[in-house]
Amino acid sequence: MSAITIRPERLLADLHRLRAFGAYQTGVHRPTYSPDDMAARRWLVTRMQEAGLTARMDGIGNIIGENAASRRRLLVGSHSDSQNHAGWLDGALGVVYGLEIARAFVEAGTPGGSGVDAAVFADEEAHFASFLGSRSAIGVLDEAEIGSARNLTTGEMLRDALASAGLAGLNRRTIDPSRYLGYLEAHIEQGDELEARALGLGIVTSIVGIHQYRLRFSGFSNHAGTTRMAIRRDAGVALVSFAHSVNERFREMAAERTVWTVGNIRLDPGQVSVIPNHAEMLLQVRDDDRAVLARMRAALQQLVTEVSQTGPCGIELEILAESEPHGMSRHFQDALESVASRIAPGQWQRMPSGAGHDAQVIARVMPAAMLFIPSIGGISHHVHEDSSEADIVLGCQVLADTCRLLLKETR
Amino acid sequence: MSAITIRPERLLADLHRLRAFGAYQTGVHRPTYSPDDMAARRWLVTRMQEAGLTARMDGIGNIIGENAASRRRLLVGSHSDSQNHAGWLDGALGVVYGLEIARAFVEAGTPGGSGVDAAVFADEEAHFASFLGSRSAIGVLDEAEIGSARNLTTGEMLRDALASAGLAGLNRRTIDPSRYLGYLEAHIEQGDELEARALGLGIVTSIVGIHQYRLRFSGFSNHAGTTRMAIRRDAGVALVSFAHSVNERFREMAAERTVWTVGNIRLDPGQVSVIPNHAEMLLQVRDDDRAVLARMRAALQQLVTEVSQTGPCGIELEILAESEPHGMSRHFQDALESVASRIAPGQWQRMPSGAGHDAQVIARVMPAAMLFIPSIGGISHHVHEDSSEADIVLGCQVLADTCRLLLKETR
Repeated sequence: MSAITIRPERLLADLHRLRAFGAYQTGVHRPTYSPDDMAARRWLVTRMQEAGLTARMDGIGNIIGENAASRRRLLVGSHSDSQNHAGWLDGALGVVYGLEIARAFVEAGTPGGSGVDAAVFADEEAHFASFLGSRSAIGVLDEAEIGSARNLTTGEMLRDALASAGLAGLNRRTIDPSRYLGYLEAHIEQGDELEARALGLGIVTSIVGIHQYRLRFSGFSNHAGTTRMAIRRDAGVALVSFAHSVNERFREMAAERTVWTVGNIRLDPGQVSVIPNHAEMLLQVRDDDRAVLARMRAALQQLVTEVSQTGPCGIELEILAESEPHGMSRHFQDALESVASRIAPGQWQRMPSGAGHDAQVIARVMPAAMLFIPSIGGISHHVHEDSSEADIVLGCQVLADTCRLLLKETR
Repeated sequence: MSAITIRPERLLADLHRLRAFGAYQTGVHRPTYSPDDMAARRWLVTRMQEAGLTARMDGIGNIIGENAASRRRLLVGSHSDSQNHAGWLDGALGVVYGLEIARAFVEAGTPGGSGVDAAVFADEEAHFASFLGSRSAIGVLDEAEIGSARNLTTGEMLRDALASAGLAGLNRRTIDPSRYLGYLEAHIEQGDELEARALGLGIVTSIVGIHQYRLRFSGFSNHAGTTRMAIRRDAGVALVSFAHSVNERFREMAAERTVWTVGNIRLDPGQVSVIPNHAEMLLQVRDDDRAVLARMRAALQQLVTEVSQTGPCGIELEILAESEPHGMSRHFQDALESVASRIAPGQWQRMPSGAGHDAQVIARVMPAAMLFIPSIGGISHHVHEDSSEADIVLGCQVLADTCRLLLKETR
């Protein structure tokens, strides 16, 4: 089989060029549809075209760079938006792997008619909605949701953001699953397991399910100096007590890999001398076991019932999002393992992904798999997020060879 | 002694005219130096001038309307700024009482050379700093503090706000204590005690001390899906646990009238999928007993030490403001009691004030006292804040007669 040769210098140079869009300290700030995010997307389109791919951006900001000469194809990519003030590799790594591997297939002459299309999805980081771009790409994002979604940080309506980004007039394109053998996505691990075990590669077995909740507490505003403690209905006190109970109960019942996070708390009106009449928190729970997620939810609902019955504040539980755990293609996992065993023997493991990824969405319409490379110190979603150049290059080579292997098999 | 006759219809009409500036639902939104606040202040200057007083606004937004013909004087007033989206009577009641009583003394011919000056202070609600206006009026507000103060809600620098309000070029005026017998301020009770006891008047014995703290928790941001619970340094978890402990311990050790409030909580970066690296809360404690305040502070410091020692997050305690309890003039209290006993026998009580007021600042340079009228349902700092017209009129008459009595005594 003819080799697919990736070029490490070009791969790293493109990663660093992408890093310059929205550079923030040692990381990037590239929220979806921001000017920096759009500039990065336009640069990616150009870079794909320079590589001989047919590339354009669609109405949700997704980019597919197609190898027009290929007859058997894989789709390889990730997302180019970032969390606010976050790291440089999250999403970007998989996007530039897709670009480099698609380019390497073109340079190898689309051997035997086999090629790779490069994919760049929009808003995986959910500034507006979970997996906005990849859900649009598989045709499960409706216009009603686009009409009602808002930016979580700024409150901007999604439609306004799309218009400002110059995407208002464009069609949204859906991927034709019959065109592809499947989807491959590389990503930084975002945890410390590979590093702790001195491994260079993680072959993802499944992606955790995520349950996301908003809890609203309603009390009554009053003067913080003149209202006796006994008659207060302080929504902030109710929230603190509830959040404390959640932490206590979840600790007792969590499975080994269960994680939960209160990422945001807001008290209204938020003034030092006013008893809050309204309080809100965002809670997220993750596990790769459906039963564990169901157990945590039941405990949460039980706590809500208890608080409702004892008062003095009202409480409301809203389910913001729920994704169930997703298994990755066993066949693709085996292909990754066979390449990893050859190129980097003893340096890989199979492992679940604690983070959600576009691969879990694309997996609904075609086989999908993921490859992890180590995160230094396990850090991600932070400007200190980083990976070694050796790991970055190794991961790309393993993914390229896996693409070649999978496409060869089907000849 | 010649009577001082207030005019109920005019008093109520002026209160309702003032309510129209920054009207918000059934309340007002008149943060200090906002366009609505400044329009209200300019209207008050005009209304004082129409009453025959010599009135102007100074460089911090304070207004003194002087009875130029008087030789013995009292100062009567309050503040005209409001909390954000709050009630219509807080501050406004005492301001319009001052206007009406000063006007009534002019109409009575400044009898025997005795008169009342009307005072309107700025920013009692501490959008920029506690008692900004009244501290400026007694000469204890320095330029350095003005240079560094920011709006608690918007972050705007005080100097910029003063410039936007058109106050940049004006001098700040200090009150000459030798000009006055003392200061009287009326206010809504902002609690439910008078209403619960079916009383119409509260003669304030002392004003509570207020200790105000900011607590900062520092952890480390990381991905909320991939970072194991055991290795997290979640600043939000640290804050929730700390706030819960504060509520538990304070409950055990509080005195009968002690109150404490967490008015604001913020998690950074505040995103659902990111472990907060920074968290902040504002805590306020009030009591009219110095020893109780000291005991609460010691408990707070003890908790901070415990958290610092056990980790995994750092914690920092900042004292934002501390005012000690202030006793009101006994002589003025007795004068209020003698008038209340005559006009409204059995309808008054003496009581401490759970809220801070400009009177506690002015009390540093001259005798001061306060009169409360009932708050319907004990509600304040809320658009539902209200008082009955009968109570509003009675309070003004009692305060006017008390002024006459005090000025008469000194003839």
